[in-house]
Amino acid sequence: MAEVVHMIDSEVFLAFSTYATIVILKMMLMSFMTSYFRLTRKVFANLEDTALVRGEEDKKKLVRVDADVERVRRCHQNDLENVVPFVLIGLLYALTGPDLYTALLHFRVFVGSRFFHSVAYLTPLPQPCRALAFLVGMGSNLSMAYRVLSTALYL
Amino acid sequence: MAEVVHMIDSEVFLAFSTYATIVILKMMLMSFMTSYFRLTRKVFANLEDTALVRGEEDKKKLVRVDADVERVRRCHQNDLENVVPFVLIGLLYALTGPDLYTALLHFRVFVGSRFFHSVAYLTPLPQPCRALAFLVGMGSNLSMAYRVLSTALYL
Amino acid sequence: MAEVVHMIDSEVFLAFSTYATIVILKMMLMSFMTSYFRLTRKVFANLEDTALVRGEEDKKKLVRVDADVERVRRCHQNDLENVVPFVLIGLLYALTGPDLYTALLHFRVFVGSRFFHSVAYLTPLPQPCRALAFLVGMGSNLSMAYRVLSTALYL
Repeated sequence: MAEVVHMIDSEVFLAFSTYATIVILKMMLMSFMTSYFRLTRKVFANLEDTALVRGEEDKKKLVRVDADVERVRRCHQNDLENVVPFVLIGLLYALTGPDLYTALLHFRVFVGSRFFHSVAYLTPLPQPCRALAFLVGMGSNLSMAYRVLSTALYL
Repeated sequence: MAEVVHMIDSEVFLAFSTYATIVILKMMLMSFMTSYFRLTRKVFANLEDTALVRGEEDKKKLVRVDADVERVRRCHQNDLENVVPFVLIGLLYALTGPDLYTALLHFRVFVGSRFFHSVAYLTPLPQPCRALAFLVGMGSNLSMAYRVLSTALYL
Repeated sequence: MAEVVHMIDSEVFLAFSTYATIVILKMMLMSFMTSYFRLTRKVFANLEDTALVRGEEDKKKLVRVDADVERVRRCHQNDLENVVPFVLIGLLYALTGPDLYTALLHFRVFVGSRFFHSVAYLTPLPQPCRALAFLVGMGSNLSMAYRVLSTALYL
């Protein structure tokens, strides 16, 4: 990590910025998807939220749990557990000055695996589709973490 | 993103550091608020936690779900889903060398919207207060993400 | 924060990269631990996941909630709520150019407290073991946040 100052201005860092932003946007999209399901299916977590939909029915009955909404929320939670580590480790990884081709491979594999993971979760596709998508993304993260630790280890 | 090395030492980066730290502290405050509600209302998620309060009653009955504690937890979860993307996208955004005034506007709008979001969630204020706070914060994030992708796109 | 450009190439930044990566890896380990418990105890959140285990029994009965799996998930969630703020605040803290010894102290105390926190959560150790681990980690984060705000404040 001897020349990180120059690295931050590199193609690797631009590529990191691009892929990190794309996958964070994908994660934020899950919030909108949850809201969409809640509003169209009239399933809410808070009593005051029932004011967002019209209808004469008993509002208290709309505060309930729905299997599809919970599925979207689990998908969102899985993104939080995987996308955030990717961006944090990926930032440090980009600063270690990796080879551009290798870095792009890590970023593309991770981002691709997370899009496929969400499709596999929400369709849902039969297992082990989602499990493999999870493992591929995790593999990219572990490989970048190995590079960071082997380049920058300072305990 | 041609001169990010100089940008990291700029007023924009100082402003980003300030607002990011403030909004992370606000998010961390939710942990304490959850603990406070759990301890004062004697509502726990783990049996061993009941040792934290005195009383002769049956400890197992304290492992239960409480509507107010769940509300604080949902508020915390919403922060995780929105504040973390803000800090990650905001960091990349600050490195693209935006105009100071524009950057401050993004940071202030986001941080203000999140404080209002928490007040709206915990009071609770009638909808669409919380929905609007959520959308305003999301809008700031999307605007910064657009700037990052339009400045640094490298696929 | 006058000389952050030089700071990013410093021993403090190397130390930050090392400890941040280690504690993120520890957080990611919780995903594998959840999967391990789900597969060995045959407890799933999605019907399609039951295809991952063999057996003649009624698959729908495997979609259920298990106390031990929920404990691992709460431990993971607590990591998300604390480790992510550590990495984000720690990055800004490392750029303020702190004394190496002080920085190492913050990083080591935080990372140590989180490993102990997980042991305390999963064993489980009697309270207040876990509460103290949580507070120690939080203290390290708050101390770093104070340094960032006192060095870089720009509102």
